[in-house]
Amino acid sequence: MEKLEVKNPTLILDEKICRQNLSNMAERAKKHGLKLVPHFKTHQSLLIGEWYKDYGVQEITVSSFKMAYYFKDKGFSNIHIAFPFNPLLISDLNGIQDQSISIQLVNEEVTKALATDLTKETGFFIEIDTGYGRTGVPIGKLEEIDAILREASFSHKLKFKGFYIHAGHSYYADLEGIHKIQKEIQEAFRILKAKYKSQYTELVCRSGDTPTCSIMDDFEYIDEIGPGNFVFYDITQAEIGSCSREDIAIILAAPVVDIKKGNNEILIHAGGVHLSKDVLNLNGHKNFGEVVYLNELGWEHPTAPSYLKSISQEHGTIHASAQLMDSIKIGDIIGILPIHSCMTADCMKEYKTLNGRMVDHLEGRGITG
Amino acid sequence: MEKLEVKNPTLILDEKICRQNLSNMAERAKKHGLKLVPHFKTHQSLLIGEWYKDYGVQEITVSSFKMAYYFKDKGFSNIHIAFPFNPLLISDLNGIQDQSISIQLVNEEVTKALATDLTKETGFFIEIDTGYGRTGVPIGKLEEIDAILREASFSHKLKFKGFYIHAGHSYYADLEGIHKIQKEIQEAFRILKAKYKSQYTELVCRSGDTPTCSIMDDFEYIDEIGPGNFVFYDITQAEIGSCSREDIAIILAAPVVDIKKGNNEILIHAGGVHLSKDVLNLNGHKNFGEVVYLNELGWEHPTAPSYLKSISQEHGTIHASAQLMDSIKIGDIIGILPIHSCMTADCMKEYKTLNGRMVDHLEGRGITG
Repeated sequence: MEKLEVKNPTLILDEKICRQNLSNMAERAKKHGLKLVPHFKTHQSLLIGEWYKDYGVQEITVSSFKMAYYFKDKGFSNIHIAFPFNPLLISDLNGIQDQSISIQLVNEEVTKALATDLTKETGFFIEIDTGYGRTGVPIGKLEEIDAILREASFSHKLKFKGFYIHAGHSYYADLEGIHKIQKEIQEAFRILKAKYKSQYTELVCRSGDTPTCSIMDDFEYIDEIGPGNFVFYDITQAEIGSCSREDIAIILAAPVVDIKKGNNEILIHAGGVHLSKDVLNLNGHKNFGEVVYLNELGWEHPTAPSYLKSISQEHGTIHASAQLMDSIKIGDIIGILPIHSCMTADCMKEYKTLNGRMVDHLEGRGITG
Repeated sequence: MEKLEVKNPTLILDEKICRQNLSNMAERAKKHGLKLVPHFKTHQSLLIGEWYKDYGVQEITVSSFKMAYYFKDKGFSNIHIAFPFNPLLISDLNGIQDQSISIQLVNEEVTKALATDLTKETGFFIEIDTGYGRTGVPIGKLEEIDAILREASFSHKLKFKGFYIHAGHSYYADLEGIHKIQKEIQEAFRILKAKYKSQYTELVCRSGDTPTCSIMDDFEYIDEIGPGNFVFYDITQAEIGSCSREDIAIILAAPVVDIKKGNNEILIHAGGVHLSKDVLNLNGHKNFGEVVYLNELGWEHPTAPSYLKSISQEHGTIHASAQLMDSIKIGDIIGILPIHSCMTADCMKEYKTLNGRMVDHLEGRGITG
């Protein structure tokens, strides 16, 4: 990795690991007869987006209008905006020529506003909450689904596509918990199909979280999956069991600026503006990221772990193993596996591949785009 | 504030509050005979940077080379980079024409590398650690200071300017704790002046944290102050007692996309990519930001508090007061006071003033620059 000439905090992407993650998820989808409609909020990159096409992906998911514009303007279509539709954006939606963009609805009020003001055909999913508690119509409240569908039926513009579940509580679950969450998703889709499939024969059921999509082997009642994080994975997913640490496709390369020998601490230029403040409690301590050693091919995982024990805006303090303390010197570059890769990518706004190619990110814009 | 036409998450800046904060700190500095060398890492904005000049500021502090370049290129000089110097950047430092840029040193090794490779005159501060534990030479280890000064003396290029302390543990202290921290800073500077002032007659002692600079009234042994956060303040500073909530100069304006009446919850478009994941534990619950109500003049503070109880990448869930639940509707815009304004500004990358002017930020670049 010496050719990268890293001098400042830099987000490094291993294309090979990334493509392996894409390939694995595409294989899983194929094996279970699922359409893969991946979420692009993790990478937010046109170039990385292109890679998915090599694994058969034709439809994508995003979490904001800003993100939808970014991909649409560069030739992506069939974009689903998986965020409760903001009624202040009806005129923006009307202004988009591409009719393949779909939206997400969670209540009667917004559906009503759209039924009145929408000027072009738009598909929508109804988001269902099976217990995460963040957003969506609770599965117990079928009357709210009826109300949304009734309001939508007053407009020839609104086209019901199906139901969407993001069971984000799987991010806080163990393997047993993830099995339980998957069962809840399947039961919700079973109920919804039993009630609505006869009237809406084309409706599909889509489920979105990386843990269930990475781990489960029973997808009955699920037609499509929309995971995002799997493109890079991270320490959170490795701890859940969605992946191993070797599957993590990005690291933050950070310069060593001081070494505190007595404390087994290493000060690096890597803080909350680079990694985000996402944190896990592992083995009784806060962990803002884990150390890997850089080598000529990329990076390797140490036999003795070291981790980021604290970060502020620009500073990071590593609690270092004896192994690391023995080999490190000021001016070295160290790798940090992120706790939450979506947030780290959003902080860093661009990537550098192992062969030195700069890769775009929506927030950094236009490096390759 | 209706003229702002906010439809998406937008960082709103009240210039009047911001200028009042600048004026207050400049007055405090003047009263105590201190030079104010404010830290610009909080706002990272050329336009806001210009405002400081109205209050007599001529020297500034930044936390990275990237930030130094941004301000230097637009006519700012006397920039101090208050981050342990990264030895990989010696050639970058040599490449900067402006000789008024100063750096920060914390160890003998980097000083030695600079003494060998520096090609132009550069001032430096030695950072001292009085107990924060993040960076700097511990005040108990005067022999390390001697080693830095000895290495520096081998070069005619390295010019010792003085000692710098950022007592960041004040961010986690109460009023009594902040008094104690200030005493530690003063005692450290007393010891350092006693030992080094006779040889380095021009040396100054600079202290950097917003809590001590906002609250204390005794600055003996301190010559200069370098606070940053005070330009905007935030909930963290209000809880410490550095300011009141009315002194907070920025809010995130966020659209309401769903209301969960039974749960007293409001779903907004505002997540970790907008506010950062910084969080406080207040009154026994996690708090990612506090609600203010928008009005035609800006915003007002509710008599019944509501707060952000959880956030993910793009979603935020407000625990709402009965007062807020009674008045809110989907499609409204709500204001969120940030927990940590430096991080929120870094996430949002631009500001909009109450009269609709867009204001630049380093990461967003060039709106007004």
